[in-house]
Amino acid sequence: MSGASGHYEKRLSDLDGLYLDDAAHKALLSEKGDVVVYEVGDFRPSAVAGDMIFGLTRMVPGLVGEEFFLTRGHIHANADRPEVYYGQKGHGLMQLESPEGETRIVEIAPQTVCYVPPFWIHRSVNTGSEELVMMFAYPADSGQDYGIIERSGGMRHRVMRNGQNGWRLVDNAAYKP
Amino acid sequence: MSGASGHYEKRLSDLDGLYLDDAAHKALLSEKGDVVVYEVGDFRPSAVAGDMIFGLTRMVPGLVGEEFFLTRGHIHANADRPEVYYGQKGHGLMQLESPEGETRIVEIAPQTVCYVPPFWIHRSVNTGSEELVMMFAYPADSGQDYGIIERSGGMRHRVMRNGQNGWRLVDNAAYKP
Ligand SMILES: [Mn+2]
Ligand SMILES: [Mn+2]
Repeated sequence: MSGASGHYEKRLSDLDGLYLDDAAHKALLSEKGDVVVYEVGDFRPSAVAGDMIFGLTRMVPGLVGEEFFLTRGHIHANADRPEVYYGQKGHGLMQLESPEGETRIVEIAPQTVCYVPPFWIHRSVNTGSEELVMMFAYPADSGQDYGIIERSGGMRHRVMRNGQNGWRLVDNAAYKP
Repeated sequence: MSGASGHYEKRLSDLDGLYLDDAAHKALLSEKGDVVVYEVGDFRPSAVAGDMIFGLTRMVPGLVGEEFFLTRGHIHANADRPEVYYGQKGHGLMQLESPEGETRIVEIAPQTVCYVPPFWIHRSVNTGSEELVMMFAYPADSGQDYGIIERSGGMRHRVMRNGQNGWRLVDNAAYKP
């Protein structure tokens, strides 16, 4: 059982341009400093088709203006590859967007399983007040394409705070299908 | 998100011939009746190469003579396909056997992740006193070949009770490489 372990973290500055309220993002950066907002650790036995990669995502809770902390989001480079997420700790959601621009939301709490179907863009959002931790597994030859979201001006919807403990979807005005 | 849900259960009589102590198996059957010893539920979005199947295994605790309740065990029909197990409840182990006949044991408790590498035969054993529950995920085109174990007279080792709470490996005399 050979294979490699990977780890990366994203800081607040890495999410520049993702948020509706750019001024709030700048203000948060100068207030908090360039803190880690999420980190991903994985085990990659191989990159061979048919093998699997699995690991853990940890996301800090927080808001940029009224918008929750989120991951950059991606589609798989081999776009027909799926992914399974499994909630461990905290509360959040998976924002899924189909090739036709349909949004689906899967709320994630401990012991929630979320299946990301082939071809769907996906992004995790921490809508809770504590760390959101999820396990994931996906085919070893999936790859990640982050450019798809940049090219379309972001995902179709934004996930905003709604009252004290809720969330709501808001159209992303910058989105171009 | 279409796809099929599957479910099957195995009863004590389905495990006839797997245990060292055949008389104990027969005695247990007449004492307890043909009870369910494990069940598997899964979600199969598709059987397409590159997709994933995931689900839950529940195993009853128990002994046949001094040998723990276990699953039949298999190698994947597409033998280069791996699997990831994730302990939810109870205590047990994954018995792994390589193509060269090497045995490896991964003990499983809640939040233990077990990666089954391509080409390894695998079987779950409930070494605890309560239900053993595990999540699993594997490539959708893996398939299962149960014959490999029958053809070699079982797996190389048996997992037997050792004292009150332990286990030990014993050579399976019927094993022919
Ligand atoms: Mn992904
Ligand atoms: Mn398997």
